[in-house]
Amino acid sequence: MALTQAQQAELTEAQAARHETRRATVPALEAMLFTPIPVLDHGFVRVVDYMGDDGAVVQSARVSYGRGTKAANEDRGLIRYLMRHRHSTPFEMCEIKYHVKLPIFVARQWIRHRTANVNEYSARYSVMDREFYIPAPEQLAAQSASNRQGRGDVLQGAEAEEVLRLLREDAARNYDHYAWMLNEDEAGNVQDESRSGLARELARMNLTLNAYTQWYWKTDLHNLLHFLSLRADAHAQYEIRVYAEAMLKIVQAWVPHSYEAFADYRMGAVTLSAQMLAIVKRMLAGEGVTQETSGLSKREWRELMETLGRAA
Amino acid sequence: MALTQAQQAELTEAQAARHETRRATVPALEAMLFTPIPVLDHGFVRVVDYMGDDGAVVQSARVSYGRGTKAANEDRGLIRYLMRHRHSTPFEMCEIKYHVKLPIFVARQWIRHRTANVNEYSARYSVMDREFYIPAPEQLAAQSASNRQGRGDVLQGAEAEEVLRLLREDAARNYDHYAWMLNEDEAGNVQDESRSGLARELARMNLTLNAYTQWYWKTDLHNLLHFLSLRADAHAQYEIRVYAEAMLKIVQAWVPHSYEAFADYRMGAVTLSAQMLAIVKRMLAGEGVTQETSGLSKREWRELMETLGRAA
Amino acid sequence: MALTQAQQAELTEAQAARHETRRATVPALEAMLFTPIPVLDHGFVRVVDYMGDDGAVVQSARVSYGRGTKAANEDRGLIRYLMRHRHSTPFEMCEIKYHVKLPIFVARQWIRHRTANVNEYSARYSVMDREFYIPAPEQLAAQSASNRQGRGDVLQGAEAEEVLRLLREDAARNYDHYAWMLNEDEAGNVQDESRSGLARELARMNLTLNAYTQWYWKTDLHNLLHFLSLRADAHAQYEIRVYAEAMLKIVQAWVPHSYEAFADYRMGAVTLSAQMLAIVKRMLAGEGVTQETSGLSKREWRELMETLGRAA
Amino acid sequence: MALTQAQQAELTEAQAARHETRRATVPALEAMLFTPIPVLDHGFVRVVDYMGDDGAVVQSARVSYGRGTKAANEDRGLIRYLMRHRHSTPFEMCEIKYHVKLPIFVARQWIRHRTANVNEYSARYSVMDREFYIPAPEQLAAQSASNRQGRGDVLQGAEAEEVLRLLREDAARNYDHYAWMLNEDEAGNVQDESRSGLARELARMNLTLNAYTQWYWKTDLHNLLHFLSLRADAHAQYEIRVYAEAMLKIVQAWVPHSYEAFADYRMGAVTLSAQMLAIVKRMLAGEGVTQETSGLSKREWRELMETLGRAA
Repeated sequence: MALTQAQQAELTEAQAARHETRRATVPALEAMLFTPIPVLDHGFVRVVDYMGDDGAVVQSARVSYGRGTKAANEDRGLIRYLMRHRHSTPFEMCEIKYHVKLPIFVARQWIRHRTANVNEYSARYSVMDREFYIPAPEQLAAQSASNRQGRGDVLQGAEAEEVLRLLREDAARNYDHYAWMLNEDEAGNVQDESRSGLARELARMNLTLNAYTQWYWKTDLHNLLHFLSLRADAHAQYEIRVYAEAMLKIVQAWVPHSYEAFADYRMGAVTLSAQMLAIVKRMLAGEGVTQETSGLSKREWRELMETLGRAA
Repeated sequence: MALTQAQQAELTEAQAARHETRRATVPALEAMLFTPIPVLDHGFVRVVDYMGDDGAVVQSARVSYGRGTKAANEDRGLIRYLMRHRHSTPFEMCEIKYHVKLPIFVARQWIRHRTANVNEYSARYSVMDREFYIPAPEQLAAQSASNRQGRGDVLQGAEAEEVLRLLREDAARNYDHYAWMLNEDEAGNVQDESRSGLARELARMNLTLNAYTQWYWKTDLHNLLHFLSLRADAHAQYEIRVYAEAMLKIVQAWVPHSYEAFADYRMGAVTLSAQMLAIVKRMLAGEGVTQETSGLSKREWRELMETLGRAA
Repeated sequence: MALTQAQQAELTEAQAARHETRRATVPALEAMLFTPIPVLDHGFVRVVDYMGDDGAVVQSARVSYGRGTKAANEDRGLIRYLMRHRHSTPFEMCEIKYHVKLPIFVARQWIRHRTANVNEYSARYSVMDREFYIPAPEQLAAQSASNRQGRGDVLQGAEAEEVLRLLREDAARNYDHYAWMLNEDEAGNVQDESRSGLARELARMNLTLNAYTQWYWKTDLHNLLHFLSLRADAHAQYEIRVYAEAMLKIVQAWVPHSYEAFADYRMGAVTLSAQMLAIVKRMLAGEGVTQETSGLSKREWRELMETLGRAA
Repeated sequence: MALTQAQQAELTEAQAARHETRRATVPALEAMLFTPIPVLDHGFVRVVDYMGDDGAVVQSARVSYGRGTKAANEDRGLIRYLMRHRHSTPFEMCEIKYHVKLPIFVARQWIRHRTANVNEYSARYSVMDREFYIPAPEQLAAQSASNRQGRGDVLQGAEAEEVLRLLREDAARNYDHYAWMLNEDEAGNVQDESRSGLARELARMNLTLNAYTQWYWKTDLHNLLHFLSLRADAHAQYEIRVYAEAMLKIVQAWVPHSYEAFADYRMGAVTLSAQMLAIVKRMLAGEGVTQETSGLSKREWRELMETLGRAA
């Protein structure tokens, strides 16, 4: 995440600025503005702007003229009620805008969330940075044996070394060839006057999927929490989960009541199917239910036992 | 648009508040915050919050670290370019939230624009205000003879008087019966202890479509401009157009460059079909084209002549 | 739900038509096409068209060239897995289009679901039907004492009779005045040559919220199920729930595996918060948890006890 | 676009199937079902399913019980009116689903259109095909000198050969390393028992952006036409434009009236800004307007002259 001097200067200037506003402000979030939070080896998340706070959720739920109640405790209770009963529209009244630097293969997962506004750095228009994601050794996992889309044990020894070498060399070589085909450097200076250079929109196809891109990404609090519930989840791929975790910390600073309700009623919550609920009732009534007597498939039985913290 | 004393006090308090922020602020819009702009006889539009400014459009188009350029003129040029070539995503990076009071039949048109966040006052939960829209006499138009969904001449004399009387009496009577069925007043006080009172979610069905409702409505600048291009248009129904016009003034204060580009390239622009363009070329080449030689239907020919400011 | 002779003739003709197609077809749903299912006193739901079936969900989840597997059992298992783990995109690959006749106050709730395509009958363009929803006596409920947006006991005796009389008379009178203001009948015949008649877009404001409107409503299976999970829920207002229930029967005929998975993992499922789950674990471990020792609010405790089928 | 024998067999079987339906069918589109249209060197577009036809647009615009009118000519006129006046909702009533094979860098542009349903082949779950897009020599263009995101002259001689060699070798080498890291072939057979193999979700990052992916993509006719108006446009990148052109031919077979109206009022239409329209009026009045007297920037003047087919 090496910012150029010019970029660093712009951020420093923005951080120093102070304006007067009548809008709701959140000091804890203001303190984080314009400060990139490092993610992975070259990526970051930084908050560029925001609108609203916990009070805006309350205000909107009541369609009131004021901002939340005097009694902060009532606000908290209402927010928890709204979250528990999935009243989503009041949470749509807060908005946040991030600037994110991320590997292309992560961007491709991320963009599947459609209810957001996005402006991505254009490789048709500009030259891409020479930066690629190379996993840390402890992230170099084998394919999971049990889960078709998960990770297993960490690779060791010669195989791990060889994988890292290939990832590094292929990304670097492909970038060098990209630059050669462009016939210009990152600043746009022509390299070899005797050549034409390939159009940027074509040359980019030689880059690898771990090349870094960046974008502005803006969404409302409800859709952000939905995104985070999927991407901060243990089943999400590690490389997107670390972004989600950084964003969760930002949410906690921004709207602490909403964050707390989200942690209790979403992230920490479990859903029991009709069949699972019936089994829990039987167990509470003292029955010794087994997989065989449960009516559940082995897979679902294992999931239920995990949920209840019991040996399958 | 009679606010209660409590509502007025809340707005006055919000207006007096001053916070410090590092975010982009727009003084001209700050001055309008928390001040309802009257629309129709009892409605209003007021800005509750906003995010971003013209600089945010520029910043996003460039996916840059800074905020627009030092040269305001370059920003204006870029914004005009983006608007002309329908690059919509940078305009999605600004967000605005309104509190609107409006007749239900207007709300039903408005809600058709789906790319917005809405929180409406709930008539399942609360008692509706005793306010209805009654058109001003000069708005009491006959059905247009030429346009199946437009207005013609203004009604006159006895017919106009009778229409106004009916609108007034029916709305008032239906509200009174609504209140009687609820068996509670607006403050929730039971009226007749011997009766149960009808559920609010049922009693509301007796209200007329000119009853006023209110909502928080939040959207991004691109979708707002799309909404305004349809609803501030001369073909839009007058009762929604006046809301769009009030919102256009707010846009002008908020993002003056974007507003100017919108006025030039959208509101004031015309679209010529392939056939119309061919006719304009023939006319510019000196040919005296008539409807008969144009190949256009009479209707399209009339539309083209109007566009070009010529007699059909 | 009195269809005119012309409407009935069109439906009969459509029902009789047989076309040949290579697309997936669902005989059980074909049998329901063009047959309005009555809902409330004058409303209906009817399927106009559909695309895809359970096999399309499977095909899309596998991004395969074929249609589902030969082994229907494998398809069922995959669909249940997708539903359980909230993989929503395969369910978006099926689409359905309904024609619905419904009271305006129901339409106003319904339209809040934004991820759908809608074409509503235009009261700017056409004259509305003379039909209003009047609740059946057993639906004439008082406001709930415990739930701000629910219903309590059914009204009895004189109060019930008076409410029904007011609803009937006000709707009829307002419609008659609407027709008088229009100065035309439903077929568009002018009534009184000496008057101009009020524009349709204005006259409609005199109608009551229980007047019937109609629309085409089209959405994908995932968003339809989300809609149904909210509107077929016991907390939804009765007048929209009966539409949701009619649509659920259609879903069952259309995509039986998806329907079954939805019934098990959504409609019949419960969500336990982090705190609730911890309490269930304590109870399973034999601890006698009470509201006081639970750490839950009284309200949440009551909700948990209801979920578990225990006395609070 | 080499389909395996198994894939070809599945398509042949699907093509041979005939079902009976009461739904609207379009024989010209039925004939295209399950037949991949080749695009680029290894890509394709094929229609998987569809819903509705031109009659469904008319039916919906009228919210009628029947299907279009008997008079096909009236349907055509109404569809042209709807397109000209941007009444978009009736066009949302038709739906189509494609199966598309396309290079990843094209998929990244395509996915920016958010109003669609997508199911992409998962590289977390499955092994990617060994297929990459290599431009045909006549598509190997230099960067445009005048347009920051366009193409200029075609590369020649040694530079062209070298570019093609690099693209070919880098893609192939990176794929081979991807396969080595996976330690399994496309059929999932382990290659070297002594190694663990890297997780698929990690190994994919070594692929190049011209690797082919595939997805199911489903959208409604209105949003499809919007997508096509941008991507079949001369300013769109060639590699996505060829997909759009293949899809346009499908639209023409599917909804011929809508297609014709789209060609006339969108693809072949031009938009004149308020300033441009004023200039056209001056020219029609006989004035010899020049860039200097036009008030337009040089760039906009050039655009106007091109539109009017005049020398700048």
